[in-house]
Amino acid sequence: MRLPQTYSGNVFIYSSDDYASSKAVIYGMPMDYTVSFRPGSRFGPGRIREASVGLEEYSPYLDKSIEDLVYFDAGDLLLPFGNAAKSLDIIADYVRGLLNDDKIPVGLGGEHLVSWPVIREVYKKYPDLAVIHIDAHADLREHYEGEPLSHSTPIRKAAELMGGVNIYQFGIRSGSKEEWTYAKEKGIHFHPFDVAEPLKKELPSLAGRPVYVTIDIDVLDPSAAPGTGTTEAGGITSKELLEAVHAIARSGVNVVGFDLVEVAPIYDPTEMTPIVASKIIREMLLGFV
Amino acid sequence: MRLPQTYSGNVFIYSSDDYASSKAVIYGMPMDYTVSFRPGSRFGPGRIREASVGLEEYSPYLDKSIEDLVYFDAGDLLLPFGNAAKSLDIIADYVRGLLNDDKIPVGLGGEHLVSWPVIREVYKKYPDLAVIHIDAHADLREHYEGEPLSHSTPIRKAAELMGGVNIYQFGIRSGSKEEWTYAKEKGIHFHPFDVAEPLKKELPSLAGRPVYVTIDIDVLDPSAAPGTGTTEAGGITSKELLEAVHAIARSGVNVVGFDLVEVAPIYDPTEMTPIVASKIIREMLLGFV
Amino acid sequence: MRLPQTYSGNVFIYSSDDYASSKAVIYGMPMDYTVSFRPGSRFGPGRIREASVGLEEYSPYLDKSIEDLVYFDAGDLLLPFGNAAKSLDIIADYVRGLLNDDKIPVGLGGEHLVSWPVIREVYKKYPDLAVIHIDAHADLREHYEGEPLSHSTPIRKAAELMGGVNIYQFGIRSGSKEEWTYAKEKGIHFHPFDVAEPLKKELPSLAGRPVYVTIDIDVLDPSAAPGTGTTEAGGITSKELLEAVHAIARSGVNVVGFDLVEVAPIYDPTEMTPIVASKIIREMLLGFV
Amino acid sequence: MRLPQTYSGNVFIYSSDDYASSKAVIYGMPMDYTVSFRPGSRFGPGRIREASVGLEEYSPYLDKSIEDLVYFDAGDLLLPFGNAAKSLDIIADYVRGLLNDDKIPVGLGGEHLVSWPVIREVYKKYPDLAVIHIDAHADLREHYEGEPLSHSTPIRKAAELMGGVNIYQFGIRSGSKEEWTYAKEKGIHFHPFDVAEPLKKELPSLAGRPVYVTIDIDVLDPSAAPGTGTTEAGGITSKELLEAVHAIARSGVNVVGFDLVEVAPIYDPTEMTPIVASKIIREMLLGFV
Amino acid sequence: MRLPQTYSGNVFIYSSDDYASSKAVIYGMPMDYTVSFRPGSRFGPGRIREASVGLEEYSPYLDKSIEDLVYFDAGDLLLPFGNAAKSLDIIADYVRGLLNDDKIPVGLGGEHLVSWPVIREVYKKYPDLAVIHIDAHADLREHYEGEPLSHSTPIRKAAELMGGVNIYQFGIRSGSKEEWTYAKEKGIHFHPFDVAEPLKKELPSLAGRPVYVTIDIDVLDPSAAPGTGTTEAGGITSKELLEAVHAIARSGVNVVGFDLVEVAPIYDPTEMTPIVASKIIREMLLGFV
Amino acid sequence: MRLPQTYSGNVFIYSSDDYASSKAVIYGMPMDYTVSFRPGSRFGPGRIREASVGLEEYSPYLDKSIEDLVYFDAGDLLLPFGNAAKSLDIIADYVRGLLNDDKIPVGLGGEHLVSWPVIREVYKKYPDLAVIHIDAHADLREHYEGEPLSHSTPIRKAAELMGGVNIYQFGIRSGSKEEWTYAKEKGIHFHPFDVAEPLKKELPSLAGRPVYVTIDIDVLDPSAAPGTGTTEAGGITSKELLEAVHAIARSGVNVVGFDLVEVAPIYDPTEMTPIVASKIIREMLLGFV
Repeated sequence: MRLPQTYSGNVFIYSSDDYASSKAVIYGMPMDYTVSFRPGSRFGPGRIREASVGLEEYSPYLDKSIEDLVYFDAGDLLLPFGNAAKSLDIIADYVRGLLNDDKIPVGLGGEHLVSWPVIREVYKKYPDLAVIHIDAHADLREHYEGEPLSHSTPIRKAAELMGGVNIYQFGIRSGSKEEWTYAKEKGIHFHPFDVAEPLKKELPSLAGRPVYVTIDIDVLDPSAAPGTGTTEAGGITSKELLEAVHAIARSGVNVVGFDLVEVAPIYDPTEMTPIVASKIIREMLLGFV
Repeated sequence: MRLPQTYSGNVFIYSSDDYASSKAVIYGMPMDYTVSFRPGSRFGPGRIREASVGLEEYSPYLDKSIEDLVYFDAGDLLLPFGNAAKSLDIIADYVRGLLNDDKIPVGLGGEHLVSWPVIREVYKKYPDLAVIHIDAHADLREHYEGEPLSHSTPIRKAAELMGGVNIYQFGIRSGSKEEWTYAKEKGIHFHPFDVAEPLKKELPSLAGRPVYVTIDIDVLDPSAAPGTGTTEAGGITSKELLEAVHAIARSGVNVVGFDLVEVAPIYDPTEMTPIVASKIIREMLLGFV
Repeated sequence: MRLPQTYSGNVFIYSSDDYASSKAVIYGMPMDYTVSFRPGSRFGPGRIREASVGLEEYSPYLDKSIEDLVYFDAGDLLLPFGNAAKSLDIIADYVRGLLNDDKIPVGLGGEHLVSWPVIREVYKKYPDLAVIHIDAHADLREHYEGEPLSHSTPIRKAAELMGGVNIYQFGIRSGSKEEWTYAKEKGIHFHPFDVAEPLKKELPSLAGRPVYVTIDIDVLDPSAAPGTGTTEAGGITSKELLEAVHAIARSGVNVVGFDLVEVAPIYDPTEMTPIVASKIIREMLLGFV
Repeated sequence: MRLPQTYSGNVFIYSSDDYASSKAVIYGMPMDYTVSFRPGSRFGPGRIREASVGLEEYSPYLDKSIEDLVYFDAGDLLLPFGNAAKSLDIIADYVRGLLNDDKIPVGLGGEHLVSWPVIREVYKKYPDLAVIHIDAHADLREHYEGEPLSHSTPIRKAAELMGGVNIYQFGIRSGSKEEWTYAKEKGIHFHPFDVAEPLKKELPSLAGRPVYVTIDIDVLDPSAAPGTGTTEAGGITSKELLEAVHAIARSGVNVVGFDLVEVAPIYDPTEMTPIVASKIIREMLLGFV
Repeated sequence: MRLPQTYSGNVFIYSSDDYASSKAVIYGMPMDYTVSFRPGSRFGPGRIREASVGLEEYSPYLDKSIEDLVYFDAGDLLLPFGNAAKSLDIIADYVRGLLNDDKIPVGLGGEHLVSWPVIREVYKKYPDLAVIHIDAHADLREHYEGEPLSHSTPIRKAAELMGGVNIYQFGIRSGSKEEWTYAKEKGIHFHPFDVAEPLKKELPSLAGRPVYVTIDIDVLDPSAAPGTGTTEAGGITSKELLEAVHAIARSGVNVVGFDLVEVAPIYDPTEMTPIVASKIIREMLLGFV
Repeated sequence: MRLPQTYSGNVFIYSSDDYASSKAVIYGMPMDYTVSFRPGSRFGPGRIREASVGLEEYSPYLDKSIEDLVYFDAGDLLLPFGNAAKSLDIIADYVRGLLNDDKIPVGLGGEHLVSWPVIREVYKKYPDLAVIHIDAHADLREHYEGEPLSHSTPIRKAAELMGGVNIYQFGIRSGSKEEWTYAKEKGIHFHPFDVAEPLKKELPSLAGRPVYVTIDIDVLDPSAAPGTGTTEAGGITSKELLEAVHAIARSGVNVVGFDLVEVAPIYDPTEMTPIVASKIIREMLLGFV
């Protein structure tokens, strides 16, 4: 017999069941072991999916509907708790598979270190890749208290791999003196404090290039995203972050992968952080895929 | 004997005990049964009153004091849980009584569907009525999953009753494609995303007309009003909402009724949502009555 | 290629993907529209599944492992918000299907009214059915403020259908005078305040009979289950509720269906309520299926 | 015209509007300035009233309904913030008025110091008064860090006024060495750690005497009442506290006044503390008035 | 033997152990007894220190590192709960000692009344002192409900002592009509609603003068600082407050003392309020000392 | 000059400043990287110290005052985030130093894995050591998902080092089948579910022996200790845990070290978990040192 319809909430709304015909694949990376302050982003992907139930399917910003897009939600990767190196390998393997299948990887973090193996794999496929990094923190440390696998290091690793000139950073308002210096010396397109305006200025030069977009939710002011490990006062509004996403969407760059990381739901009993994150994901799916 | 003075906190501060001489009457509508995401606005009116204890009586924006105004707080209407149709009838009956007594109805929600019977009654008394609707959501659906009595439908009903050209919408940033199309086709004065600027442009054309003002607290960004059922990122600040209220107050329109709806306190342990709501109510009382 | 393993958290842990070979089927009923106090149990099933991730597979109480059991998690039923009558029909249809397929229905609420259509369907299949009802509230009202479809009425409806002598109630500590009288007059096996001791006394007389077990999480003291709509002080510990479940498991009754209802996560930021609920579900699966 | 019925939530449920015919009068004392740890009990009375909405009118413990009792809820006394001495005078004046009108005072705290002026006034009227004090803390300090008006001192003051032999203390599990010694030296009937059992042993000797009952909600274990300033692990369950109240109700003592103090709602987002407090109040009204 | 290094979190990060060589001294004033609405700022200093652990040492705004500054954290003053007058004396004595030792006092509140004795002592040492007061509330009341020692009065006292023309107020958006009038009559440099712009206009006239800066965290919008007793909607962002601090730092005024008050952590489970406060303190240390 | 007294809250109350004359040394181990469910216990030690401010100095259970005991609070060890192996080395080094100085180590966790290096060091000094382990979880796994350094393994490691017969486990109610079997095979004194009663039976056989006591706060029922990573329903009350501590204190065993681990404050907005933990620490200091 055919049973009545049920709904299993733990996929991003309107996800397709059909991996083969999906252009993009959402996957969670529930890792938070190397954070220096407040852990808990391992529960981010699940709560972003749960919050997506409250979204409408239509974006009045882009005049598009998410029902018209085919994407797959693969759930969360199974990662070994406390073992950062092995976790990064699993992520790399998974993303390599997605790229081989010509899917656009859509990652949900998890701490920011998870973006490092993804960028590395995407770069292998697209050697002229540029990275747009939107974050409160520079993430350009060589190591953190001696530890090279830290949530403070992923963009440094990317810069060393790809060259600083292919890294575009926006909204940075916290870091060490060394990170600030490093950004300048290596030719990183480094735009502290603001996001939308400098981004709009840089985008024309990126037109046509393959781009990976990585957003740390803590680029938002703590008022708009309290549910993250290392909130940093003086951030941007969610209006500005939406504006930035829409600017990329309209710029003619070729987004070949993207992620949103560092949602740590436990610090936010209002649930506003997974709610804003789910909307940003919807707009990125509609604008980038 | 005369007992020492006591204070029963559950009226809006400085409410009068004298219904007869009151120009305006505050009443709560604790209904939240048709919401599609997070219920709980039934407790909104009580917590707005509780939060009003923290307000000062003087508005430096309007240079007026709430002590100089005579208004009555009638408490909450007794509504049958889960029975939307009957609840709307009770609200309509109550408001009809207020209008017969020449009171200005000041409604506290509850979900937004409660505004529908109020607007209908006010429109009966003022056939040249205009409605100013400030909200994150268009609320222009014909039905929600087949249900015509839904918190997504009240402004659609008002538009059908009064004609779209008498509806002024501000701040809308979420809805279906159909709602967007409907707004345009029916001649609704439709201003998505922003509130204060477009409102200031529309107000001169409304001067002298009777106007009903309905504010859904979720027009505010989730950062400023997390305590509501369907928060939507990318909203306005409370500064802008205050500016909008003050613009109406100074515009020369004749506000004949108003409400503030969708405060759901449980999602906001900081209590900032009832606190901002109580201030908006104070400013509307001072500016509109 | 074969992608690395992922895990989609929104099924009860160790659920099988194979409906056909599953003995039991878990399904959520996200309905909370008729509650008289605090709504929010629509989010109960999702959070119980999420919390199940923290469970170990082995029960030292029953010396059994959940890995050895084959059961299916169907997700949540799609119910129309605010329409209680239609929601109950959908539930009835779904459970009828499960029973036709010879599955044991394992329901997750949602408000307690959802148990009513389930019991009705199970009773059709097993005319000698007995119901074990563990709850803080009698749920024996004929109607609530005139509304026959209320979370206060499901056991009354069951008693009228099946006869009071087939109803066994435990832990009841709140209700109207009329409910207390009704229980006595109709021959309900009515055991207020306590659960484990009176249950152990009644169980021998039920040996061999088909039994439906319905647990309202508010039978627990508010200290052990704050995340529910109508907490009632003076309840039992989770130790006693576990003891009760184990007593049924060892009694020789034939449990043909069961549910656990009224988990409303928003009232419990500690998450202890979905956590205890997930453990009770694990023990019932191990003990009853 | 006659308006439809409204309900103003800020009275204890089923309160009468008729002071004259009421046997008992509920009044709030929103004072919390002298606490040594976590302040906030000024919001206790309001939230206890709000929580009472969730109560049923019938007590299955006492087989009585609160609808059959006539009592008045006077709201909260207006107390000057930070001025303890003046606040205590206002409380004393108010209670003197109630006693002159032959009402039973039913106080809601606020910190425990508020009980001191009440006991003093009641003692003036009933010179053979005994005090039953149920609390985690002895409250027998002469002063706290030099301050005689402290929430640690009210029972000491009562003992000095009335003689230690007329004080009965139960559940005490925290205090200074000096308080323990004082209790013994002054002949206080001092029962640390437990409540129901020692109370049942003492009650026969109190039969017929006028008794004032004062309950500090922190006698409950933190698990059952987290919303209080100075929680103390190792406390009793709400079941035991209910049992104690019922024992007094059935004992034949003449309760001439009672209070429940130290509910500080902000520390308890689950609301279980005002919920249990409202039930204890209901049972005391039914059992004592 | 030399034990491995440990860290005792309850000092502001990078505090020196060496009082003698420290230019500035941080001290907490855990007083909150005179507040009219929500108490709890006594726990502010401790949580600000705890939150400082999440800060980086480098300020990209000022291009300075806090490691290069020598300052001492003295912990919290021991104040008698509930005794405002005596508490203010202890604060005055302590600050007098700091000033004698030529330290810059850096106070952490506690309620705003704690600033009054500090300003008085600083004024004794610097008779040409100006006060920059950044706050949502005017704090210009003569008394609050008859009580001259209230958190609504400190700036009034300062104005009476020093003359209104030496007081500069910014961001004020709440107060009584009388406070507004007083500010004008006494020649206070009174700038309601905004902070950064009017401050930048006033600063040149203050160049070279000794200045005391007092910041009430509630100048921020509730969205950015929910953890305070009397939040007031319509406030500034943390970006604007940082801009104001940096403007003072670059202005050439001689900051001889400063404080940040009214952080009440319990109202903010997200911890964003102590987090923003700790960053403002870091920037003031770097910019003012 | 001599400045007035200040208090720096981040030491356990009544700690001495004098390491040399202290019998016991409190130290925090803020490590939580290997947990399998909810991280956050790195903030446990700090919040336990903060909560200790609310304790009275006198224990009526033991009739002793903590003022009469000399102990030192060393703060938290500086551990490298995410590097479990190195963190355990630092802990071992530190404890070795304490033991060389003939101090009793009093550890505050952090996850339970931190107890492993401590037990190893204590065992080196006391080869006839017995371990009393009070916990909800057996912690007897050989590895967790392949990882030998996991919070599920410390007691296994201790059993392998010291022999199972020297391990005494109480309150265990969760674990794998293998752990249950291991406990039996290795002769561990294994007492599932209950604590106080079996402990009292075992204690006489331990009289005179050196004993290390390790308490995982999750042995308490979630109702009494929600602030921990892996709460497990069906636990004991804080009354029973206090009874167990007092039984050890009175038994004549020679406690040569102890710890309390797994307090994760973020899951408990009521703060009851650090509050009960601080009381248990006080009782252990009074009873064991």
